[in-house]
Amino acid sequence: MAFACSVVANEPFVNLATAHDRSSSPTEAVKHLQVQNEIKKSSPSWFLSLTSAVSNLLQLDLRVNKLPFEQSDSKSTSGSCFVFNNEIPACSPKEEISFLRSAIHGPGDWSPLLEPLHPSFRREIVKYGELAQATYDAFDSNPVSKYHGSCLYGRHRLFPALGLSHHGYVVTEYVYATSHVHLPNWLVRSFFPSLWSDDSNWMGFVAVSGDAESRRIGCRDIVVAWRGTVCPAEWIEDLQDKLEQLPHAPDDVRVEHGFLSIYNSRSQTSHFTRSSASEQVMPELLRLVELYKKKGEEVSVTITGHSLGGALALLNAAEAGSLLPKDVAVKVISFGAPRVGNEEFGDMLRRDGVKILRMVTKQDVVPKMPGLFFNEGLNRTGWEWIYEHVGDVLELDAGASPYLKKGVVDIAGFHGLETYLHLVDGYDRTEGGFRVGARRDVALVNKAKGLLREELAIPANWFQPANKGMVKNEFGRWVLSGRDPEDIPSPCAANICGACSSTV
Amino acid sequence: MAFACSVVANEPFVNLATAHDRSSSPTEAVKHLQVQNEIKKSSPSWFLSLTSAVSNLLQLDLRVNKLPFEQSDSKSTSGSCFVFNNEIPACSPKEEISFLRSAIHGPGDWSPLLEPLHPSFRREIVKYGELAQATYDAFDSNPVSKYHGSCLYGRHRLFPALGLSHHGYVVTEYVYATSHVHLPNWLVRSFFPSLWSDDSNWMGFVAVSGDAESRRIGCRDIVVAWRGTVCPAEWIEDLQDKLEQLPHAPDDVRVEHGFLSIYNSRSQTSHFTRSSASEQVMPELLRLVELYKKKGEEVSVTITGHSLGGALALLNAAEAGSLLPKDVAVKVISFGAPRVGNEEFGDMLRRDGVKILRMVTKQDVVPKMPGLFFNEGLNRTGWEWIYEHVGDVLELDAGASPYLKKGVVDIAGFHGLETYLHLVDGYDRTEGGFRVGARRDVALVNKAKGLLREELAIPANWFQPANKGMVKNEFGRWVLSGRDPEDIPSPCAANICGACSSTV
Repeated sequence: MAFACSVVANEPFVNLATAHDRSSSPTEAVKHLQVQNEIKKSSPSWFLSLTSAVSNLLQLDLRVNKLPFEQSDSKSTSGSCFVFNNEIPACSPKEEISFLRSAIHGPGDWSPLLEPLHPSFRREIVKYGELAQATYDAFDSNPVSKYHGSCLYGRHRLFPALGLSHHGYVVTEYVYATSHVHLPNWLVRSFFPSLWSDDSNWMGFVAVSGDAESRRIGCRDIVVAWRGTVCPAEWIEDLQDKLEQLPHAPDDVRVEHGFLSIYNSRSQTSHFTRSSASEQVMPELLRLVELYKKKGEEVSVTITGHSLGGALALLNAAEAGSLLPKDVAVKVISFGAPRVGNEEFGDMLRRDGVKILRMVTKQDVVPKMPGLFFNEGLNRTGWEWIYEHVGDVLELDAGASPYLKKGVVDIAGFHGLETYLHLVDGYDRTEGGFRVGARRDVALVNKAKGLLREELAIPANWFQPANKGMVKNEFGRWVLSGRDPEDIPSPCAANICGACSSTV
Repeated sequence: MAFACSVVANEPFVNLATAHDRSSSPTEAVKHLQVQNEIKKSSPSWFLSLTSAVSNLLQLDLRVNKLPFEQSDSKSTSGSCFVFNNEIPACSPKEEISFLRSAIHGPGDWSPLLEPLHPSFRREIVKYGELAQATYDAFDSNPVSKYHGSCLYGRHRLFPALGLSHHGYVVTEYVYATSHVHLPNWLVRSFFPSLWSDDSNWMGFVAVSGDAESRRIGCRDIVVAWRGTVCPAEWIEDLQDKLEQLPHAPDDVRVEHGFLSIYNSRSQTSHFTRSSASEQVMPELLRLVELYKKKGEEVSVTITGHSLGGALALLNAAEAGSLLPKDVAVKVISFGAPRVGNEEFGDMLRRDGVKILRMVTKQDVVPKMPGLFFNEGLNRTGWEWIYEHVGDVLELDAGASPYLKKGVVDIAGFHGLETYLHLVDGYDRTEGGFRVGARRDVALVNKAKGLLREELAIPANWFQPANKGMVKNEFGRWVLSGRDPEDIPSPCAANICGACSSTV
């Protein structure tokens, strides 16, 4: 079901027929086709590539809607028009990629898989990105919620609740963090500290691949996903731009002290951060690695995160790289992450064989912080105070996607993790920079942003619960719905009782 | 289940236990009671009245939480605290009020019912207000919806969908309007004009009381409900402040020409407004009046609306008052309505025996427009250009409600219809201006506003569909959900075919 459509004078056109309404009839379609000639003159040039990209992407016969534009010469941006089809599956069937185990999960860098980007590696990057996205989607950001700052779901329900079970991972532990450094807009506080915590936030999870997924990728994959702060505006405040020595590392290794504080701080007043994030994650990593190595399995550790979460992933990888057995490859897949430490910090990660792939969007300001924009260009001999990025880079360009608004500077939009996942899915240096075979649902870009072109008719910031969680109770009063007992945050998830985290 | 609770230093306190979570235990309650002594010193003075109002309202034993504050002398606003109970039914059982038929629906003004406000009349005012609120709650305001500007539901489904069936009315017709006068921010346009209309908006409905409700109130009640524009900011632009002669009325009767244009304009390009709003409503009113008078029933006509809708209600009442049989009382119940016409317009309504009750909140600016703020104070002999309000007034005061934020100027909040309904429900010149017996759900105030005190822990603007109407289809893609065929706007509802509207 796909057809082109009419124009409202001076309004960007939206074909909502398939997007909004299963009742659209062929006769309706015909009616719309009739008005295409009117559109002809007003069809903008960018529109051609947009039409063909979208249409190819959705495997449509282009004859129908190419015709009106073939002789188009106008540069007007009014009356844009393309077909849209929501009946192409958003994800492709899973393939066996165990033969790529050493290339993806073994030692040695990733550059052979990057240019051109190996299709199976692309999918793995998106998989890890979606696990990182879970830390945002499941974060309780409702300021009047009792559990504001916690995870909305118990760890056993996280993936099912977010529709991520198909990745084949099981959460073994939740990670909470606090900080003793003032980081504006980082920590959110619950009005009801006695019910969970007023100085801790849920920061992510440790998960492990199930048997089927382990067979598919050729190893038992232990994942740590770290939540970031979402808004770059906060970032600019957050970054203290102050380097501090990394404990248990050579004297000259320095990292940003705000990140380190989140990773290492404890709080005696909270059940959830009596141990620091580091003290919650590392024993669980060691436990799982030992558990599966004892079974004679190949084990890999993949640490992922977006924004601040990408910085924490790097600190976590530095610790894991030095504490885990050398035959366990420690990898970082980060999205829009800032710089974390100095050159010596990078050297330490390289020495420990930590593999790092940083997804960086040209238009995203966060990876340019902290430090100087031209940082990497400097000859920094002896400048140990200068921040340095480390690892392989996959450079993305928001301008390459035909789905994203043109000519807008949307700092939050460019930084959004869903935007990153969209650009990774479409990444291709050929084909005009965005591959026509991309399948990932474009609508996800607007979950918490408004970066999609109006023509796609996807509401901005659409990811929201009905009535912000208010439900009508049996007395006819609207109240915030309570949580199921299994979704109420439990200190067990913060690894202060061994019993819970031992059930993989 | 009700208990008081702890304070987060420098944070306004929120007791979410009953509001959010059915799992709150008595022991939890006890824990919270223990910290009340800490609160004692920081309890603000306004808090005492708030506590007692809310507690009385909810019929709670105050001993528990009065104690900590009895000797309170602090003026600090931190650490406010009160009990909250969501297990009191939000609406009381319906009573037989046919004995009030002539007082409410007969000739003669309403002043005898107003001071003190008769409890049964109060409920009738709220009932009509809720019917007017339906025109907002069911308006498709999603800019990317195909039917943007229409009603979300077919007329048979409107009341069930909004949970208003208990009022016992049936919608007989939908009303659409257009305008030939430029009224900024009045008309919203669909991107998909061919599917419904690009120059018409749904403006309300005609409904009639069913047999049970007719028996209860003592007459067959025909209601017209008019939608307004929501934001006062738009208002200030909208009002052209230009008087124009009212057709079919004495020469000197003048009304605001923007309102008149919406009420009287036709459009040949739209199936929905080939006849004007007036031409849709009046034949339906005449049809229903004749239908029920033939059956020998007492018939009344009640026209209601908020904001712009209140102005349209007055124009509609002027026409109904002159065209309907004189033994049918025409009444207007308006909320936050602006001035509509000059003194002679008021005289005309009085001559035709139109009964008008205007709900006006002291803090709402809209009823002060258009014209001069001190308008009514003027001796306007011969000043026929001056706007004048007409009818009885129920003056409400947002300051009287213990639930609304203090010391804020929230123009949109004070103007909101749900705020009006809350203040009508609590209206009482004694008892500190807000009656403790008020039962209407306070949470409704925040449906589309943020006027409730933080202590109530009700999210602002909570009335919203899950994911803005996006649903995951069988192909794993997020799409805007389509409408059921019966909810797709049909020109029949706009009275251009007799068949539909003849089914009462």
